[in-house]
Amino acid sequence: MDFIEIIDLMGTIAFAISGALAAFAKKLDPFGIIIIAFVTAAGGGTLRDILIGVRPVSWMLNMDLVYTILICVLITFIFRRWLLTLRKTLFLFDTIGIGLYTVVGIEMGLTAGLHPVICITLGCITACFGGVIRDILVNEIPVIFRKNIYATACIAGGLVYFLLAKLNLLENWAFIISGLTVITIRFFAVIFEWQLPSFYQTGKEDPTVF
Amino acid sequence: MDFIEIIDLMGTIAFAISGALAAFAKKLDPFGIIIIAFVTAAGGGTLRDILIGVRPVSWMLNMDLVYTILICVLITFIFRRWLLTLRKTLFLFDTIGIGLYTVVGIEMGLTAGLHPVICITLGCITACFGGVIRDILVNEIPVIFRKNIYATACIAGGLVYFLLAKLNLLENWAFIISGLTVITIRFFAVIFEWQLPSFYQTGKEDPTVF
Amino acid sequence: MDFIEIIDLMGTIAFAISGALAAFAKKLDPFGIIIIAFVTAAGGGTLRDILIGVRPVSWMLNMDLVYTILICVLITFIFRRWLLTLRKTLFLFDTIGIGLYTVVGIEMGLTAGLHPVICITLGCITACFGGVIRDILVNEIPVIFRKNIYATACIAGGLVYFLLAKLNLLENWAFIISGLTVITIRFFAVIFEWQLPSFYQTGKEDPTVF
Repeated sequence: MDFIEIIDLMGTIAFAISGALAAFAKKLDPFGIIIIAFVTAAGGGTLRDILIGVRPVSWMLNMDLVYTILICVLITFIFRRWLLTLRKTLFLFDTIGIGLYTVVGIEMGLTAGLHPVICITLGCITACFGGVIRDILVNEIPVIFRKNIYATACIAGGLVYFLLAKLNLLENWAFIISGLTVITIRFFAVIFEWQLPSFYQTGKEDPTVF
Repeated sequence: MDFIEIIDLMGTIAFAISGALAAFAKKLDPFGIIIIAFVTAAGGGTLRDILIGVRPVSWMLNMDLVYTILICVLITFIFRRWLLTLRKTLFLFDTIGIGLYTVVGIEMGLTAGLHPVICITLGCITACFGGVIRDILVNEIPVIFRKNIYATACIAGGLVYFLLAKLNLLENWAFIISGLTVITIRFFAVIFEWQLPSFYQTGKEDPTVF
Repeated sequence: MDFIEIIDLMGTIAFAISGALAAFAKKLDPFGIIIIAFVTAAGGGTLRDILIGVRPVSWMLNMDLVYTILICVLITFIFRRWLLTLRKTLFLFDTIGIGLYTVVGIEMGLTAGLHPVICITLGCITACFGGVIRDILVNEIPVIFRKNIYATACIAGGLVYFLLAKLNLLENWAFIISGLTVITIRFFAVIFEWQLPSFYQTGKEDPTVF
């Protein structure tokens, strides 16, 4: 098991737990919880694989990943009272997840020989789209369109990676620092309620424009 | 035309009719009805093909399927009053559809040499995701997240297939019994209002958690 | 750069501007605006590429397209007051976009050797699904299901193309006339409030039917 596979597995665990907690909060039945945990953990990577052209998509040949998600759902179920009372647990696991998955997405893009801008985009997609698909399925506003910094943290992490790679830092260290950058930015963004600058006057949304 | 192709065609007919009826109920225009019927009938299989890596996706090379859906829309249009007054028609066609498509999905997974758990997942995706995409497009809560047994029936049918296959039953019989299992479970689940066990206290949904 | 690439680029510009304007109207932050502009401009083509089996999807190997979208977002940002006061600008760019992209989709289907009906479907998907994905992400009713002619214009344009091709018209002229057909129909449909015939009595939508 190489370095990126370990990061991928850790990201899967973090997102499967965050997905299962979100499904509990929505009071879905056992089966709905498994689906949402699976979509949250595997959705971003699946979209990335489809866009790059990896076939079949990775989780189909990787039963470890499938079993990992099922075990995470079970563990989350057992400790759900304890996990949910710690109100910030969900946020914490989600934050760790996007940091780890950003790194995995960049690495997949590099392996496919794609342009750095596309690699960073793939990092973002891997990190954010599991959550986006989860939100669409449970009919929430997708996480990346809410008022705080989310995808921006992934992009910053991606830029840090390519900066460090240019400085000839060892690849694994560049990945670690890049992932920690994502986690740190997202973490402080929520704690201190950072927002991207807004250039709108206050007021209501425009009605449908098309 | 082999056995699975016949089952696939029957499933397409069932889902195209159920999709067209759902679009009528939403008062979409003629073109919207065709799109929804198409998405309901072909959406699950399209997602399955994309995930496995079949390219181009099957309906692109299969004009019979495209014409079948158009004819189903026309027939549904002609008999729509009669079909809609029989309130349960829609439910009936949808139920037959998920039974047939579960079997088709499992067979495609076996052909691609995938693990039984993945084959059952593909059966579920083929059966359920046409309806999920339809629901997202018309802005309903996706069918698999409503309060009754739906995807669970597909999984049960998948388990029955692999059980029978282990007992060396003839493949086509295993498929037929598996499909009937799905239909029977879904049918009685709706009639008798079966639900998966819930472990929540009564009360309202939690607000957005992320 | 050949003829179709030029049309593709012009379509990208039209849709990137229309997407950015829609995101401004929704008061998204800078990053949300870029995502929505990108999805609107590249979403339909991405779905088309996935369905046909082009891999990786075209924009991954085409940095020009990525930069074009970013520049369009910037230009739209600078001129946003001027563009938004001209209330119809958004509609205009969207209309030009669907005309151009219908042609691109048909051409890609022909190149892949697909049936004319499938080529027209691909033209529709290329033209309409960027907007559909945009609408799902910002939680609007997808544009193709609103009360006016949209996808129908793309289909009419596709039929015109194959009619002209049968009459042995030079391919590029057939593309131009086909694209103009889409734009003209959509334009007059909105100006004169054309609708497809409805066969429903007036009254409210049926409740959820599944």
